Amino acid sequence: MTGTVWGVGLGPGDPELMSVRADRLIRAAGHVAYFRKAGRPGRARQIVEGMLRPDAVEVPMEYPVTTEIALEDPRYNAALAGFYTGCVSRLEALAAAGGDVVVLCEGDPFFYGSFIGAWTATDTPITWGDDVLTVLAGTLPEAELARRAADTDALVVMKLGRNLGKVTRAIDAAGRLADAWLVECATMPGEARMRLAEVGDRPVPYFSIVLVHGRGRRP
Amino acid sequence: MTGTVWGVGLGPGDPELMSVRADRLIRAAGHVAYFRKAGRPGRARQIVEGMLRPDAVEVPMEYPVTTEIALEDPRYNAALAGFYTGCVSRLEALAAAGGDVVVLCEGDPFFYGSFIGAWTATDTPITWGDDVLTVLAGTLPEAELARRAADTDALVVMKLGRNLGKVTRAIDAAGRLADAWLVECATMPGEARMRLAEVGDRPVPYFSIVLVHGRGRRP
Repeated sequence: MTGTVWGVGLGPGDPELMSVRADRLIRAAGHVAYFRKAGRPGRARQIVEGMLRPDAVEVPMEYPVTTEIALEDPRYNAALAGFYTGCVSRLEALAAAGGDVVVLCEGDPFFYGSFIGAWTATDTPITWGDDVLTVLAGTLPEAELARRAADTDALVVMKLGRNLGKVTRAIDAAGRLADAWLVECATMPGEARMRLAEVGDRPVPYFSIVLVHGRGRRP
Repeated sequence: MTGTVWGVGLGPGDPELMSVRADRLIRAAGHVAYFRKAGRPGRARQIVEGMLRPDAVEVPMEYPVTTEIALEDPRYNAALAGFYTGCVSRLEALAAAGGDVVVLCEGDPFFYGSFIGAWTATDTPITWGDDVLTVLAGTLPEAELARRAADTDALVVMKLGRNLGKVTRAIDAAGRLADAWLVECATMPGEARMRLAEVGDRPVPYFSIVLVHGRGRRP
């Protein structure tokens, strides 16, 4: 008897926006695993607060590093690779002992393992008709961000964190700043939306997204 | 007493993949509206089969045209605009009479009013690390499709229908054909996935999507 390890996407953050299947698996799970920064409750775990079985065994997996080491530093990849290998062994051992394990994943685990859906918070579809949509990581170089922002109809920029100033300059250089929005913590407590031009360069929550809506063919 | 008109996204097609909130609104609805082609049951209505209240009033809204008139023909937009205006009046009248109305929308209604999520059917994330993702409509000109397919890491092409031959040639011209997949009816009965190079030029179901996975930084 071997158990199953389920990777369960939590959607954008509001527990009502996760799928019916995710809801069912989480409520039935004997083991619930999730990633978090050391010393923090963890966003994924917070989203499922009140949903777990009273006897569910929790398996927190704490990142050895987050922003202390630069992404470009080979030690970053080495530390993360070792950490993930250890997590897999731990989950496999639980499943081999016969237990089903639900691994909580913010957003859609197959889409940057992170967060989509912020456009709903702006009350406007992100795309119309034949609009080209480009999704960029804010970690890209400024010139690359500007080039791609200028060559798309609709734009989503994720992974903002400390990159907001750079992203804002790139979108301005592309001539799209007047149409750009920043959405923080969409569908979650603390949701806020504002024109990007009014934000300035400040750190923003990881769960933030920059949007430029497409302007394609409409009925 | 005025009712509310709810636009409810159904997700990719499997009823278990709609959101908890969508499930709740659909099961409670007194009026359920949906678009369909004349003479067809309608995909949205099929997805919610077995979920409606026995006394729910159904409001089918039948497109006056689909592919009989070319998109570029001004009569297409005129016919659709008149149709949508009529639909809005009909829904507003129901709400004004005090009834809540749920309008069923395939996919995410703010994202092409259509379908996302096919990458899950390929068992591979669509993006990694800082991958650039481009989402294109298969209705775009072949040269534009090829240019953009060559200038992205991950690619999603929607709105395939009768455009598959053109899309395949464009992806081939961009040098990405060996990595491209076609997914038909993801998460629905009849789901199929195959290498795009092996498909040839044939009409495919509207709920089909072409994918090229990104190959960005991985742990």
